[in-house]
Amino acid sequence: MEKRTAYNGQVTEELVEKHVTLHGWVQKRRSLGSLIFVDLRDRSGFVQLVFNTAFSADALAVAETLRAEDVISVHGKVVKRSEATQNLNNPTGKIEVEVDGIELLNKAKTPPFDISDDVQASEETKLKYRYLDLRRPEMQRGIMMRSKMMHSIHAFFDEQGFIDIETPYLGKSTPEGARDYLVPSRVYPGSFYALPQSPQLFKQLLMSAGFDRYYQISRCFRDEDLRGDRQPEFTQIDMETTFLDEEQIQDITEGLIKKVMKDVKGLDVKTPFQRMSWHDAMANYGSDKPDTRFDMKLQDLSDLFKDSDFKVFSGAVASGGQVKAIVIKNGANEYSRKQIDQKQEYIKRFGAKGLAWMKFVDGEFNGPVAKFVTDQHNELKDKLNLVGDELVLFVADRAKVVADTLGYLRVEIAKEQNLINKEEFNFLWIVDWPLFEYDEGDEKWAAAHHPFTMPDDEGVKLLDTEPHKAHARSYDIVLNGYELGGGSIRIHDREIQEKMFKVLGFTEESAKEQFGFLLDALDFGFPPHGGLAIGLDRFAMLLAGRDNIRDVIAFPKNSKASEPMMNAPAEVSDAQLAELGIETRD
Amino acid sequence: MEKRTAYNGQVTEELVEKHVTLHGWVQKRRSLGSLIFVDLRDRSGFVQLVFNTAFSADALAVAETLRAEDVISVHGKVVKRSEATQNLNNPTGKIEVEVDGIELLNKAKTPPFDISDDVQASEETKLKYRYLDLRRPEMQRGIMMRSKMMHSIHAFFDEQGFIDIETPYLGKSTPEGARDYLVPSRVYPGSFYALPQSPQLFKQLLMSAGFDRYYQISRCFRDEDLRGDRQPEFTQIDMETTFLDEEQIQDITEGLIKKVMKDVKGLDVKTPFQRMSWHDAMANYGSDKPDTRFDMKLQDLSDLFKDSDFKVFSGAVASGGQVKAIVIKNGANEYSRKQIDQKQEYIKRFGAKGLAWMKFVDGEFNGPVAKFVTDQHNELKDKLNLVGDELVLFVADRAKVVADTLGYLRVEIAKEQNLINKEEFNFLWIVDWPLFEYDEGDEKWAAAHHPFTMPDDEGVKLLDTEPHKAHARSYDIVLNGYELGGGSIRIHDREIQEKMFKVLGFTEESAKEQFGFLLDALDFGFPPHGGLAIGLDRFAMLLAGRDNIRDVIAFPKNSKASEPMMNAPAEVSDAQLAELGIETRD
Repeated sequence: MEKRTAYNGQVTEELVEKHVTLHGWVQKRRSLGSLIFVDLRDRSGFVQLVFNTAFSADALAVAETLRAEDVISVHGKVVKRSEATQNLNNPTGKIEVEVDGIELLNKAKTPPFDISDDVQASEETKLKYRYLDLRRPEMQRGIMMRSKMMHSIHAFFDEQGFIDIETPYLGKSTPEGARDYLVPSRVYPGSFYALPQSPQLFKQLLMSAGFDRYYQISRCFRDEDLRGDRQPEFTQIDMETTFLDEEQIQDITEGLIKKVMKDVKGLDVKTPFQRMSWHDAMANYGSDKPDTRFDMKLQDLSDLFKDSDFKVFSGAVASGGQVKAIVIKNGANEYSRKQIDQKQEYIKRFGAKGLAWMKFVDGEFNGPVAKFVTDQHNELKDKLNLVGDELVLFVADRAKVVADTLGYLRVEIAKEQNLINKEEFNFLWIVDWPLFEYDEGDEKWAAAHHPFTMPDDEGVKLLDTEPHKAHARSYDIVLNGYELGGGSIRIHDREIQEKMFKVLGFTEESAKEQFGFLLDALDFGFPPHGGLAIGLDRFAMLLAGRDNIRDVIAFPKNSKASEPMMNAPAEVSDAQLAELGIETRD
Repeated sequence: MEKRTAYNGQVTEELVEKHVTLHGWVQKRRSLGSLIFVDLRDRSGFVQLVFNTAFSADALAVAETLRAEDVISVHGKVVKRSEATQNLNNPTGKIEVEVDGIELLNKAKTPPFDISDDVQASEETKLKYRYLDLRRPEMQRGIMMRSKMMHSIHAFFDEQGFIDIETPYLGKSTPEGARDYLVPSRVYPGSFYALPQSPQLFKQLLMSAGFDRYYQISRCFRDEDLRGDRQPEFTQIDMETTFLDEEQIQDITEGLIKKVMKDVKGLDVKTPFQRMSWHDAMANYGSDKPDTRFDMKLQDLSDLFKDSDFKVFSGAVASGGQVKAIVIKNGANEYSRKQIDQKQEYIKRFGAKGLAWMKFVDGEFNGPVAKFVTDQHNELKDKLNLVGDELVLFVADRAKVVADTLGYLRVEIAKEQNLINKEEFNFLWIVDWPLFEYDEGDEKWAAAHHPFTMPDDEGVKLLDTEPHKAHARSYDIVLNGYELGGGSIRIHDREIQEKMFKVLGFTEESAKEQFGFLLDALDFGFPPHGGLAIGLDRFAMLLAGRDNIRDVIAFPKNSKASEPMMNAPAEVSDAQLAELGIETRD
């Protein structure tokens, strides 16, 4: 195998008349009279090879046997193509390589699917042959872009004096948060390590240790039920700082994002990013991670309808709920009654009893609800700035149901109506969060972020009296409707930490058992500190313009948490289990 | 809390007459008349604060209450110290800060040990309060140096066109190699993921996928019995390349090491590194990872003694073994009979029956063996270049026992005799390895590196006939007697891979069951490829001049694979186990 002189995608006009040695995969082969053409592919792109007895009869003979995905090394001369045969869509499309020597490095069987971005194979087949799927140009681009992001991130943190510190993956299980993945211990049968859901406590302890500025691109593990943008293991850009307040940490984060966007996308994003309070986000967008690339805000009509005869509306307000609406410009003509009814069905998952709607056409309201609210027609028209051809969707319910339903519909309709500029990247801080949120599943109060989040000054006082009214010194970074990451100032005071645990239902004993090391640490000169974590997979997915984080992970699990290529998880021998002191249950 | 204007270690003469705001930990406080002095510490070093009513009576009052490890923020003016009070050992020793404002950010209880490099606490106590131990300057330096290494590594691979690709931590158990850590699956009760011992197969598949140059700073997991330089989880600089031969991969590796040594230690290391065959390393140093900072080679005396009347020597040769010796210059006066006898005891662990020795003083051999080998005295003197006052240690045994014993003694004695220049970094390639080695424990042939290592051309032919004579296209990188890393050209040919599995005792079925995905992949255009992995912990330990990798890991496990701070591993609830479909055995 001769030494390669260039990647295939680099063989451009500048190399005309030069001799090159190229390696790669046969993308396709075709014959034209006495000529054979081969597209030779590698990670940089592809180049056209041409074989003919005039260049080498031996090479031609080998070329005749070539099939897609064969691996070859060729030697030849770069020549300019005639204008008629140039392919201006390909950077190498003005030249071709006249091959005078070839070495067949490995033969390929017919692959289970074409190595092409038009691939038609099932997700399962593509995962089983992931190494083939990853050969496709769009997958190559995604993985390479992610690498570029990581290099940009490392360079940024290095410049900013952050120390890259690895934290353990074999840690301790904590009952807080999501389910842990457990790892049985052979040395201590009956005991288990846990894979970390995040390096949260380790990074706080690193601040206690005085490292001042820590970061890590870290793997995290959560044994949760999977969704499109979740994986059992995922990667986090994790950072923590000492002696900084939230503004300073947000500044650093903006610097990071600015650099990544410039290095990876060539875009100059404007800083500082918009700040929006959690309250305003929920009120105007029905979401704590609003997509601000389009308007269509939620309009509060509770006051307008609180005394209405239409009991669906006034009743909701009377029982402490809300009436809110979104307006779809030109929606009157776009949505049929049937299409609206389909949405009725979908929104039941948010607990919504139903969707009320009216159309405003030629200065008149119509639709099933219009006649019940005639008293409010004029005010409604003014308040919602209706000019004509609008569809108005109403939800009257508990505040959470209203927010979830209209928040969802707002995004769904924006997609349907093509209101979203896909080239736009709207970064946004959500600030002034509640410290606690009510967990309806567990029927108890839980930390809105995590139990180590510092309340604001007023919140510290409320811990003793009305803790659920407390606000947190936490902040989320949102991009285009996705929670990109979040962070907070942490508690560095033992007394406040103990109060937090108490509000969360810990006894003094159980707090000590689970978090005794942290409480101890708070006694020995723990500095004020705070930080942030950003989901790298999601960030990469959004920058790559993909819909699923699997597309930017080299070897992801499928939607059932298994990996079809190597077949993991799998059964293991009883001897292995015996050594670990465990057995499976029937 | 005011915004910090400088790290404490940066407050030097250039800031004289400037006002600064500093944050940090109280290292110590002392009073001198009406003055109070406080050393304020952070990761950059420390600076002397001085308090007096002249600067601020309020600040002085707070200073009177300060204790070690209290966290404070101070404001003050930088002034030059009088010459008599300057401390030239500290970069900030020519100045002090006259404090006119102080904020007490957190109080500290008396820590369980002093934050000082003279710390006397037990290893277990230091691990329990790791966040305090990490405050010590030498620990800070180690962790920060490691971060510097990582930044250097990322920058190098980025420059060289390598793609940083993360591979899964939830993988599949393979019975090869060390014990796996297992992770029970909740979704598939009775099935288990395994934490990877290395990303070996993933990185090979990434080469099949066409990424051409991959690297990753990757965590690896081995459930082995622990030693000083082993941890259950460790970090590997992992790389793989396509279409390159071993020389090219070694060149890249040397470039990496050269850059790291320059960036981190400021040293210019000379490349190319010395290449030594595995055979020569074993013959001359009794080790496949020789420390070449000193000479003291093993001398083969088998020929000289094969017909000797001294049966201990000639008998060993007759039964296929060897007689070898090392010469300790000036050792005749340095080692008493008793000291040599202590070594007799130690070397039994290598299976050695005993250590023979002679001293050569005033032109005469003496010691217990001298009189049995009088016929060889002259030749021995010539062959070993003895001039006087030497101690000669002999081992006569099987080749492996001779190598292990003298290899160990060589290093042990070099340490005792201070023959090693600790400032020297001797990088060395060990090449031309055997493909297989006999595993005396399991009584079978095993892969010397791993089952995916390509035999050399001659070795490929030997696979069918005398596989155990085959040599591998593998290479280890050695630093100062430690195996820093290793790599190889891998098998990209299905037939060769199948033969390897066969030699290793796999049936066609078991090979397919364990490695079917790899065999499949070899069918679909797998390119020639090879790579290398370097142990980052060990590399960092050696550059930091420490003896234990724990010193360069932020939160290591102790020698019993447990972590005393958070107390991992630990028992978990039965509910957690039930959900995973496992239970503990009694």
